[in-house]
Amino acid sequence: MADNRPPDASRRSESARRAIHDAALALVAEVGYPRTTIEAIAARAGVGKQTIYRWWPSRAAVLLEAFVGLGERAAGQSGTDGTQAFPDTGDLAADLKAVLRATVDELNDPAFEAPTRALAAEGIVDPRLGAEFVQKLLEPSLQLYAARLRAAQEAGQARADIDPRTALELLVGPLTHRWLLRTLPLTHEYADAIVDHALRGLAP
Amino acid sequence: MADNRPPDASRRSESARRAIHDAALALVAEVGYPRTTIEAIAARAGVGKQTIYRWWPSRAAVLLEAFVGLGERAAGQSGTDGTQAFPDTGDLAADLKAVLRATVDELNDPAFEAPTRALAAEGIVDPRLGAEFVQKLLEPSLQLYAARLRAAQEAGQARADIDPRTALELLVGPLTHRWLLRTLPLTHEYADAIVDHALRGLAP
Repeated sequence: MADNRPPDASRRSESARRAIHDAALALVAEVGYPRTTIEAIAARAGVGKQTIYRWWPSRAAVLLEAFVGLGERAAGQSGTDGTQAFPDTGDLAADLKAVLRATVDELNDPAFEAPTRALAAEGIVDPRLGAEFVQKLLEPSLQLYAARLRAAQEAGQARADIDPRTALELLVGPLTHRWLLRTLPLTHEYADAIVDHALRGLAP
Repeated sequence: MADNRPPDASRRSESARRAIHDAALALVAEVGYPRTTIEAIAARAGVGKQTIYRWWPSRAAVLLEAFVGLGERAAGQSGTDGTQAFPDTGDLAADLKAVLRATVDELNDPAFEAPTRALAAEGIVDPRLGAEFVQKLLEPSLQLYAARLRAAQEAGQARADIDPRTALELLVGPLTHRWLLRTLPLTHEYADAIVDHALRGLAP
């Protein structure tokens, strides 16, 4: 998108945008999503409420953009944030366990957990936000699973007759289910068991 | 809980409770959860707001109780609502496909979808409500999967070395993931593919 404002104004609004992102992420982790209102975000970022209303349709939209930005910054710093790279050591089980264990750690990390839960919950009752959440945050990482499973098919480590886009849901579905609904603890042992069960199957 | 009120008062409050349940379920399906306020429920049920505040701590608590009651009424009428009976024809794959297909139909039914989504979303950000949702609605039906998998183990149709409580998540996890996050369409074909993939495994 072309920005015809003079460089100073553009820089100022970029810095306000960043302050608003940081305020939204900090608030949701500190006081919870129900109390992360537009008013609270504006106060913490040191901007007027109108600035936020001008740029975003809802607090969920602010949080989604902030969270996407967080992922991009992490990727820029480390180059290996899990949504950017999927290991391929040639051992499918080991690679899947490494990624699912890292996902378990991330989901158990309060800094990620609070905004992810808030966005997932909003998306569940708001189809438009849900679609944006899936498109911007979820699907790109799911495609990395699909690519790894396709490589495994080519290497003869995964059945040729499965659709990788469906098969990956046997890995991420159970983790997400247990995490979102808090049915039982989300541990590395669980991640390993899911990979073993999914690869070997439940039938004898 | 002992009820020392005279029979008439008890009958009246039972009928008010039922009217409140029905109002909550109807509103969430018609206008969505965000607009299903305590005020709206009270108006539709023809009771005062204070009646609702006296009996429930939140609108989510009203909806959860209403939804549990709905399941109990359905079970009382048909005796076969899926949370009461799990088929055991001796063919594990066929039985799992029948149950997952019925679950797909239920999740795609607007009368079930709206309250289930609303309760799941509330539970995701509210651990106390989430625990109640899992305990009263989810875990009883998960235990039926576990029992069916144990029977399959005894019949030699499922591996002896799996924990049924973990294994069932390979079946319900993917369905729940796809449904809650609306990543892709939830169909009978998908239910069948999940059962086939989970039983045979992704490895060759």
